[in-house]
Amino acid sequence: MTAVLDALLTALGRECVRIGSDIPDRNFGDASGARQHAPLALLLPRSTEEVSRCLAICHAHGHRVVPQGGMTGLAGGANPQENEIALSLERMTGVEEIDRDSATLTALAGTPLAVIQSAAEEAGFLCGIDLGARGTCTIGGNVATNAGGNQVLRYGMTRRNVLGLEVVLADGRVLRSLNKMMKNNAGYDWTQLFIGSEGTLGIVTRVVLALHPSPKGLTSALCAVDSFGDALAVLRRFDSRFPGRLLVFEAMWREYMDVAIDRSRLTQPFADRHEITLLIEAAMGEDPGAEDAFGEALAEFIDDGVLKDALVAQSGNDRKKFWAYREANYEFGRVLPEGSHFDVSIPLSRMAEAVDLLRQRCARWPNATLIVFGHVADSNIHLSLCDESYDDAVGRAMNEVVYGVVAEVSGTVSAEHGIGVLKRPYLGMSRTEAELDLMRTLKHALDPKGILNPGRVLAPA
Amino acid sequence: MTAVLDALLTALGRECVRIGSDIPDRNFGDASGARQHAPLALLLPRSTEEVSRCLAICHAHGHRVVPQGGMTGLAGGANPQENEIALSLERMTGVEEIDRDSATLTALAGTPLAVIQSAAEEAGFLCGIDLGARGTCTIGGNVATNAGGNQVLRYGMTRRNVLGLEVVLADGRVLRSLNKMMKNNAGYDWTQLFIGSEGTLGIVTRVVLALHPSPKGLTSALCAVDSFGDALAVLRRFDSRFPGRLLVFEAMWREYMDVAIDRSRLTQPFADRHEITLLIEAAMGEDPGAEDAFGEALAEFIDDGVLKDALVAQSGNDRKKFWAYREANYEFGRVLPEGSHFDVSIPLSRMAEAVDLLRQRCARWPNATLIVFGHVADSNIHLSLCDESYDDAVGRAMNEVVYGVVAEVSGTVSAEHGIGVLKRPYLGMSRTEAELDLMRTLKHALDPKGILNPGRVLAPA
Repeated sequence: MTAVLDALLTALGRECVRIGSDIPDRNFGDASGARQHAPLALLLPRSTEEVSRCLAICHAHGHRVVPQGGMTGLAGGANPQENEIALSLERMTGVEEIDRDSATLTALAGTPLAVIQSAAEEAGFLCGIDLGARGTCTIGGNVATNAGGNQVLRYGMTRRNVLGLEVVLADGRVLRSLNKMMKNNAGYDWTQLFIGSEGTLGIVTRVVLALHPSPKGLTSALCAVDSFGDALAVLRRFDSRFPGRLLVFEAMWREYMDVAIDRSRLTQPFADRHEITLLIEAAMGEDPGAEDAFGEALAEFIDDGVLKDALVAQSGNDRKKFWAYREANYEFGRVLPEGSHFDVSIPLSRMAEAVDLLRQRCARWPNATLIVFGHVADSNIHLSLCDESYDDAVGRAMNEVVYGVVAEVSGTVSAEHGIGVLKRPYLGMSRTEAELDLMRTLKHALDPKGILNPGRVLAPA
Repeated sequence: MTAVLDALLTALGRECVRIGSDIPDRNFGDASGARQHAPLALLLPRSTEEVSRCLAICHAHGHRVVPQGGMTGLAGGANPQENEIALSLERMTGVEEIDRDSATLTALAGTPLAVIQSAAEEAGFLCGIDLGARGTCTIGGNVATNAGGNQVLRYGMTRRNVLGLEVVLADGRVLRSLNKMMKNNAGYDWTQLFIGSEGTLGIVTRVVLALHPSPKGLTSALCAVDSFGDALAVLRRFDSRFPGRLLVFEAMWREYMDVAIDRSRLTQPFADRHEITLLIEAAMGEDPGAEDAFGEALAEFIDDGVLKDALVAQSGNDRKKFWAYREANYEFGRVLPEGSHFDVSIPLSRMAEAVDLLRQRCARWPNATLIVFGHVADSNIHLSLCDESYDDAVGRAMNEVVYGVVAEVSGTVSAEHGIGVLKRPYLGMSRTEAELDLMRTLKHALDPKGILNPGRVLAPA
């Protein structure tokens, strides 16, 4: 154990290798509440070359390494396990280039997402990746977890925004494809393998992102529908009428709105309460009349009976009020008892059935609150199941019930948060044994000693 | 050799195993002109289970297999090499399901793309994949080659349209993830590995595609610009003004238009000839006035001097005339001497420089015609360099010159056609040794005996 530390200190110096009380608490664990440990050492490389040296030494000693970004993950993937060495990308920050003609941005992996968003905006573009943790999460972590967020409907998951990567393999070898082109079929696109691999196959050190034109004519509405079928009809009609302009299509089921109104004391937005409240945003463009067309479409949907009610934002302040409903869940922890929280996807054609089944099965906790909300256009819902009686055993039972329903409707146990350590026990509910076997084959091929983030995603070999 | 044929015949019968003169010529080679061979046998499985049995037997005998789709490839990847057994997916056709609520389509791999497009349209959707070979190419081949085409700007390459896959591995194991969800971070997305792997890692048997809303308000224009910089300015301004509505943005440089007008006898579209002619199409949506806005934007660009001239289609017939310029190249073989043809990508910021360099370097063939055209918004151009003196040696010299320029400007030797056998000698000009090494590692991990399409993409082990 001291041999690997000695080798690291000799090669990289005290500036890059922290031990004992020099390691800040933030490197002990992520935002998931999963079990935390102090790492054996914290490595703070300043360059790809230093990341490479760190990994080459750990690999030579067969020592386990946990890569760390902004520590905002929700699956425990970046929490050190006992005796692991943490390698944080926090010193490798900065936007290195914005290529305006190619509409690309190149950044070091430790760059916070918000810094990338600002740089893109200053250059007249939009970064397609956005999520609540934008101020703290890093682009390397976004790539490693294939982060989702608020604009997936329009710009896709992180995967779709990545054009090029630089990655350091477990043994220190550096792979570099800082591709700026939309099309590149020169052999296997190996970068795909590392996107969403949660630090288990390599450490991302540099990222090339495709940028998008800044959305113009942002319009927002809060709408009410009677059923998920009507929500889908609104989505399809809107998308067909204004192709490519929808940015946000979020749904909050009635129990969610009840908690927001009755416990978090937000104003009831409509005269009546409805099965689902939708938050819809679109970039209508610069055309004169384009923003009016948005309201006109909603009025037509109300006439047709597919929408029950709708409010169109007349100001930035209105827009903030609408988002307050969707973001109310950040504070639900204060008004609800403890519970289990889920990030699942359900095929849209089975979403209504899934919510019905969840309501039925969760009735075995008669006083529990089940809230359902999320990025439904992407098939992604978040669930919380909270109860005064909550403890570890109840939590496990809740997981079994919820993931059971998800499996029954061909859903997935992780939509955007990843597997980490917390969801590993449930991965087999969304993947066949043949798929898991292939994942193990890939892991073994790229990291035969199993030193990179072992036990995350897959059980240790 | 006869042992493997005996085993295949015994397991699958004469109906599925063709030999000798029962093998049609179409299975001897693709559309590339690469060297063709009659395969040792042609396997015609009718189900995934039969594909699995075919591969398990070939694997047990260590016998090489070339997978075949519509045989429209341009890189020789589906041409049998000596003594290879061909496995064609031609009997595995059919759209199995359109899930309207989830906006997905599930089809067997041998289904022609045009059949999939029609099925999507009948259900009120659009298939995002479109290319000239649509009537013959198959969806399995599209996935295996990560096909591009005419709408990549809007809908991405095939990769972006694929939600789920079923794949048979070299040893016959079946992997199945018929995912219908936009978001699924349940472990590694192994499907990415097979997209664009050109049949070297597994055989695709079933595909789930995301469908898009049918584009409405299709508008087309033929435009003239003085420089590539101006073409880019038009692209960025259009995309910013009408976000998400551009479908097509094709460029034809002046030498291309000269051949189309002077030799293929198409009418000169504008009073003057210009550096670049653009074909632009957008889906403006159903809004009243949306189509007018397209013409108004072009008028404004002319006032600003960024466009030199523009014609907006007033009818389907006009649109056909515009496309006649872009598709004139299909007939250039009749009016131009023999030559080398290229499918490359260049970062947009270096496109003008690349075209200048190509013109300079190709001047060493003083009578040669260099034509440049393609899907420039995606950074993809096609080049042809034709000369009366063309022979194998001249062709090799031309390849060296063109790929040399491509490498100099950080481009790629294959944008959308893949590597196959024809481009394998040039793959190292777009990939580092570390990248090639990783590709070999992946190939070995998934196909340790090297029976699947050996020698395509990578040199045989």
